[in-house]
Amino acid sequence: MEHPFGQLTINSNTKTERTWTDVDALTPALSGSSVWLRARLHNTRKQSAKLGFIELRQRLSTVQVVVQGKDLVSFACGLPKESIVDVLAEVTTPPAPITSCTQSGVELQVTRIYCISKAATRLPLQLEDAGRSDAEVARLKLPRVEPDTRLDNRVIDLRTSANQGIFRIQSEVCALFREFLLGKGFIEIHSPKMIATASEGGADVFKLTYFQRHAYLAQSPQLYKQMALMGDLGRPGVFEIGPVFRSEKSFTHRHMTEFTGLDMEMTFKDDYHEVLEVLEGLFIHIFAGLNERCAKELEAVRAQYPFEDLKFGRTALRLTYYEAVQLLREHGPAIGAERLAALEQQQKAAEELGSSQEAKDLAKLVSDMREHLKTVPVHGDEEDLSTRDEKLLGAVVSRVKDTDFYVIDKFPAALRPFYTMPDPDQPNWANAYDIFIRGEEVTSGAQRIHDPEMLVKLAAQKGVDLTPIQDYVNSFNYGAFPHAGGGIGMERVVMLFLGLDNIRKSSMFPRDPTRLTP
Amino acid sequence: MEHPFGQLTINSNTKTERTWTDVDALTPALSGSSVWLRARLHNTRKQSAKLGFIELRQRLSTVQVVVQGKDLVSFACGLPKESIVDVLAEVTTPPAPITSCTQSGVELQVTRIYCISKAATRLPLQLEDAGRSDAEVARLKLPRVEPDTRLDNRVIDLRTSANQGIFRIQSEVCALFREFLLGKGFIEIHSPKMIATASEGGADVFKLTYFQRHAYLAQSPQLYKQMALMGDLGRPGVFEIGPVFRSEKSFTHRHMTEFTGLDMEMTFKDDYHEVLEVLEGLFIHIFAGLNERCAKELEAVRAQYPFEDLKFGRTALRLTYYEAVQLLREHGPAIGAERLAALEQQQKAAEELGSSQEAKDLAKLVSDMREHLKTVPVHGDEEDLSTRDEKLLGAVVSRVKDTDFYVIDKFPAALRPFYTMPDPDQPNWANAYDIFIRGEEVTSGAQRIHDPEMLVKLAAQKGVDLTPIQDYVNSFNYGAFPHAGGGIGMERVVMLFLGLDNIRKSSMFPRDPTRLTP
Repeated sequence: MEHPFGQLTINSNTKTERTWTDVDALTPALSGSSVWLRARLHNTRKQSAKLGFIELRQRLSTVQVVVQGKDLVSFACGLPKESIVDVLAEVTTPPAPITSCTQSGVELQVTRIYCISKAATRLPLQLEDAGRSDAEVARLKLPRVEPDTRLDNRVIDLRTSANQGIFRIQSEVCALFREFLLGKGFIEIHSPKMIATASEGGADVFKLTYFQRHAYLAQSPQLYKQMALMGDLGRPGVFEIGPVFRSEKSFTHRHMTEFTGLDMEMTFKDDYHEVLEVLEGLFIHIFAGLNERCAKELEAVRAQYPFEDLKFGRTALRLTYYEAVQLLREHGPAIGAERLAALEQQQKAAEELGSSQEAKDLAKLVSDMREHLKTVPVHGDEEDLSTRDEKLLGAVVSRVKDTDFYVIDKFPAALRPFYTMPDPDQPNWANAYDIFIRGEEVTSGAQRIHDPEMLVKLAAQKGVDLTPIQDYVNSFNYGAFPHAGGGIGMERVVMLFLGLDNIRKSSMFPRDPTRLTP
Repeated sequence: MEHPFGQLTINSNTKTERTWTDVDALTPALSGSSVWLRARLHNTRKQSAKLGFIELRQRLSTVQVVVQGKDLVSFACGLPKESIVDVLAEVTTPPAPITSCTQSGVELQVTRIYCISKAATRLPLQLEDAGRSDAEVARLKLPRVEPDTRLDNRVIDLRTSANQGIFRIQSEVCALFREFLLGKGFIEIHSPKMIATASEGGADVFKLTYFQRHAYLAQSPQLYKQMALMGDLGRPGVFEIGPVFRSEKSFTHRHMTEFTGLDMEMTFKDDYHEVLEVLEGLFIHIFAGLNERCAKELEAVRAQYPFEDLKFGRTALRLTYYEAVQLLREHGPAIGAERLAALEQQQKAAEELGSSQEAKDLAKLVSDMREHLKTVPVHGDEEDLSTRDEKLLGAVVSRVKDTDFYVIDKFPAALRPFYTMPDPDQPNWANAYDIFIRGEEVTSGAQRIHDPEMLVKLAAQKGVDLTPIQDYVNSFNYGAFPHAGGGIGMERVVMLFLGLDNIRKSSMFPRDPTRLTP
């Protein structure tokens, strides 16, 4: 008989013909049977020389394994956490539910255990620390794991239940986006990321060396998706999922220098609201799909980062810019004051707990909010709503209209790019829209100008030089369909659906002006 | 009553409540009914002052429209081709099938026609020229549209039936790739494209300015997809669809400086062939899916670029590197000679037709092939097969094994990157594989080293400095699953499935050392 434990190397030269069982497939119905598992060693506990317990983990699932016998206990309980083990064990039902594991109704009795990859004894980050909620950290008076520590050791950090949930949800957002649009006849395109000119304005663009000259990284697929549409690709339109690059020196909770854009562009028959309706339906499809398909993942995220379920209806709430400003004027001061009071309470609690970094962060928020409330109600109608106005509007809409998902339609034309179609009846306004989740913008979109003469005229008015993008302008010279579209910040959707406080939590390996690794 | 024809502006300020019909939905069953269509003006023919014919086009579909009455004929037949028109017409059945249109069983009798976007009278490229096959060009003794002319005017070129087919097929390749892997429990990831170090060797990498320092564009998501896997993302693995950047000064038919990578990486239990099997199944799913879902598009491509259906079986043919070399030795000279003879014939024909550019290109191919055949059979067993060897092997396998899709398994270790797992029983060989379609590589993959000590040792042997990618090396220190994967060149799959002669035909806006626009 083979030795029942030891170190083993897996290297494609032995076929074991084993049947492997997943941790989350372990149920009392399997009692009495023997199973093979490959999993991480989540925890070990040596009760005596002859009895030990180990916990095995696969993604969101854990199970307890009983280890008996001196040699076996010594080996198994001596392995470093996070090692990978192959375990042969008998499934039993424990006398009482094992509340520390997700598979509480079963327990395993180990027969054999092989370590196939031994983790370092000292990990730079403990998974149990990384997985704690702020409330638990406060209750246990433990130091918080700083965001940079997490990101510097992202491979371990990704293994927390919350992150397992977040990145499964991220994957599902992309799947739901695509299946909705493919179902409507859209086709997927891939536009170049290296472009010859700083296409959309010129600021905030990364420059690279391209053989004997320079190139730039695309700040969006905007011009290319329109050109694809003018090339008759897709019915009624095209979409793209790809990286978007912004050389902005922003250090906010919601900006990164590289993010994933979910872009779409489509033709319409009469009115750009046909496109807006598709975009709204797309979001509702994503939200409903996440709730339906990711129940376990949502709970895993919630356990570490508590959030309230996103409120959304069967159709989107659509406000004009004017209505949004009115709402903010009417309800902003009172609701803002409430939010301020709540924040002040939080700040006080953090101070009492001696959590200095958190208290400092909160103090900054409180003082910012105090300043901001002095400016509400906002001044002019054609002035851009500030990020803080938007956030407050989110709170107002949530309270007054009972939804966290809404659209602002018709923006002051001065605030939108040169290729945005003006409202034909009120030329200071544009046929443009932004989509919001919990008071933060996730999509900016508009009807685009498809008449080359109008494009040239309006670019001149805005002082935009079209010479470097003549190919784009020309593409409307050969018969152009009326069209509109939008770009969605994928990581923002994940962040805001889950009520996370920082976009770095929804990006696998985030990039900002100071972070370029790992 | 509204004026029955004229120029019209669509600008979101009128809701027509019209029901629109697609050209490909027009069948004799609709005879007698009135339909609204928005389509491109594909062609116009003024038969007399009172009778004209126009052809309307939507993507792959065309229909003939009869125009009667002096004013209507004058207006409709005076419109430039490629303009967008809204047409109200009665569906009739023509006395004889209209062979010039895809909807041969119906004809439309126009009631109203409005031009909603007028194309320029002089287009830089005529669609009928861009859509001709080489055979037709030769038969009609017309000048060929040069590839650069097409790409410079890509928005018009994309409207040819062949391109409509190619880019719908491209979209479907991505959809099939994803649905296969999502179905197996993989999750989709998005890895950063801007990275701190020239990760994989250092050559051929684009450098950019990143605030006060430099960054590089990722040459593949290789290191990141492995790190995602070590972060326990996905069961059994992860995939990514994204741009890949190569600063190679290659001017071949199959290299671009930016292309779309279909990447996957997965854990295995015993043997990396578990992963290879998934990759093979993935390709077969893509091939079968294209045949099933894109019949019309395949025919559209074939009409301009004739090709033979890809031969593939229900499982992949798997050859070892050694077997591949043996096959080439045995059958290469004879089959190579046949191919040479065929090429010489083509060259002669081109010369006779006076098609000088084509004849010149062929002459080069012929002389290259003559040179190449002198070196077949190949010399050593551990020497890399050249691109020409591979192409000839493709012809040999197609003839001898009756398949255009095969895998070469086990490569000389010296030819593979430092992170490739050596074969434990013959350390000069690697657990690595390439996947071929019609004799051209579309995927390179391997088992990766998951043991950090071995990784350090082998990198040192290959002279690779791991210091700049310490995060990657470290990720195997915290318990590492045995794993393997591969990267697929998406545009190559499209090119080779369709037997196209140049990868620029399967990239919407291709990039090479000299082309950075449009």
